[in-house]
Amino acid sequence: MSGLQALIVAGTHGNEVNAPWLLNQWKQKPDSITTHDLKVVPVIGNPLALAAGKRYLDRDLNRSFSPEFLGDSSCCDREVLRAKELLSLYGFQGSTPCHVAIDIHSTTACMGTSLVVYGRRPADLALAALIQHLLGLPVYLHEGDKTQVGFLVESWPCGLVIEIGPVPQGLLDFQIIRQTQLALEACLESLSRVGNQSTHYPDYLIVHRHVESIDFPRDLEDQPDACIHESLYGKDWFPLEKGTALFQKLDGSVIRYSGNDSLIPVFVNEASYAEKRIAFSLTKREVWLVNDEWKLSINQLKSLV
Amino acid sequence: MSGLQALIVAGTHGNEVNAPWLLNQWKQKPDSITTHDLKVVPVIGNPLALAAGKRYLDRDLNRSFSPEFLGDSSCCDREVLRAKELLSLYGFQGSTPCHVAIDIHSTTACMGTSLVVYGRRPADLALAALIQHLLGLPVYLHEGDKTQVGFLVESWPCGLVIEIGPVPQGLLDFQIIRQTQLALEACLESLSRVGNQSTHYPDYLIVHRHVESIDFPRDLEDQPDACIHESLYGKDWFPLEKGTALFQKLDGSVIRYSGNDSLIPVFVNEASYAEKRIAFSLTKREVWLVNDEWKLSINQLKSLV
Repeated sequence: MSGLQALIVAGTHGNEVNAPWLLNQWKQKPDSITTHDLKVVPVIGNPLALAAGKRYLDRDLNRSFSPEFLGDSSCCDREVLRAKELLSLYGFQGSTPCHVAIDIHSTTACMGTSLVVYGRRPADLALAALIQHLLGLPVYLHEGDKTQVGFLVESWPCGLVIEIGPVPQGLLDFQIIRQTQLALEACLESLSRVGNQSTHYPDYLIVHRHVESIDFPRDLEDQPDACIHESLYGKDWFPLEKGTALFQKLDGSVIRYSGNDSLIPVFVNEASYAEKRIAFSLTKREVWLVNDEWKLSINQLKSLV
Repeated sequence: MSGLQALIVAGTHGNEVNAPWLLNQWKQKPDSITTHDLKVVPVIGNPLALAAGKRYLDRDLNRSFSPEFLGDSSCCDREVLRAKELLSLYGFQGSTPCHVAIDIHSTTACMGTSLVVYGRRPADLALAALIQHLLGLPVYLHEGDKTQVGFLVESWPCGLVIEIGPVPQGLLDFQIIRQTQLALEACLESLSRVGNQSTHYPDYLIVHRHVESIDFPRDLEDQPDACIHESLYGKDWFPLEKGTALFQKLDGSVIRYSGNDSLIPVFVNEASYAEKRIAFSLTKREVWLVNDEWKLSINQLKSLV
């Protein structure tokens, strides 16, 4: 038995229904997920929003783990209360302390099976490298975006997001469920290996580092007056070139990319990002050496709790 | 100028965003939709739900036009109030009376561009025949379903639904917008021809008549414990055969079709129907003679208001 305990969160957004369905099946048939003897705590992130079929009730739970909200004792938004509850139950200093949080999401964007890491915490990068070595998944490294903060996994000593798409919100899709299962099992295997000190690291971690997010073109009433260009849809992880068609308007006009070559779009047309004024985000592909600090950091996790 | 006036409704469901986007563009650039000189009144069905990014706030607006709700002066559900408002503004006896209602929807199911007709009102069937003659669209004839009543178009003397998919909820998709534009223009052309008495009817109307709706298999907690089988997804309008795989479970088991040959599924995996306990509906394809009663009925519309 590994010394690590992993929190597995599904349904942090209540309209992303495939991972919660998988967790429910898992609860009923414990052998349906291979845990590699890791200690796991599966939990529904936002059960009220899931029951309501909504992303959230009062505010995005996955933006509610910021010091601003966690430190505000007067805030009674249901998601902020739930964030505090999850931490008191399963946080680093909670009643059932977990070392690692794996937060499973789905997206309407054609992200395939991918990982999202927030910032450059060494233990996160070590875990991402282990999983990328197993499955070859692309990694989106989200950092330096002051408008998007308070992600769930940042409140645990180590954690990352599994992000799978395309799938509409609210829709069960068997292929998405299978992809979720495979990615989750790769996470659990990687963490189990950390616990058993039988890790196999690659030499390099390939990341797609966040550069900026791009909003829709907007009219005088601040409404989007163009859509993602058909030729860009489905092109997550494919480098842009100067002149690539980004948006199209009803009158046939096209807005083209005029920025740096080789930036790579992710989350192209994620439905829930429209309210955040994000049509897609741009990243830079980088190859990072897997270093000893990362390995040391993830190995030290179990002494933390 | 035709004597008919048509109400064009988009955003009856607030999370179906493509038709509202098209109407907004149309408002700004009146020549972006070819109206064939028909008098039209474009309106957002449920603006509050659209602003909130939700299908509805209190109840499904497109199930709120039943005598039960319209006749209940004590009901303060926002959608019931909106139904009454739409009728007082644009109904048959409203301040801006419309003869016909065209209600534009989108779906996560692979319905392509299709029409939905509710019951067998002769004028609706005449209009469906005219549009099918122009574009060859499949027609879903919804009837005999006591659990699904109170549709918007039933409160106008003539009306039908344009239903287009697949597209996730909340997501702008240029192809869906183009399909919406094309289908709407075909409706307007057909109605204009009725007004100008220059109609060209086909000999037959092909309908897919509603037979029954099929729920997901459920576990002891009444939760779906199987998904639509991968091979059925995208097979709207394709006849089932005995033994066709319908659902699959995580353990690999498959639930197969054991009913009559040649029934045809529609709305396979429409996300918002899960709450209505509908995984898909079954229809029977029928070829109906276009008859004089239908033509007479639609010709008499303009004398109604």
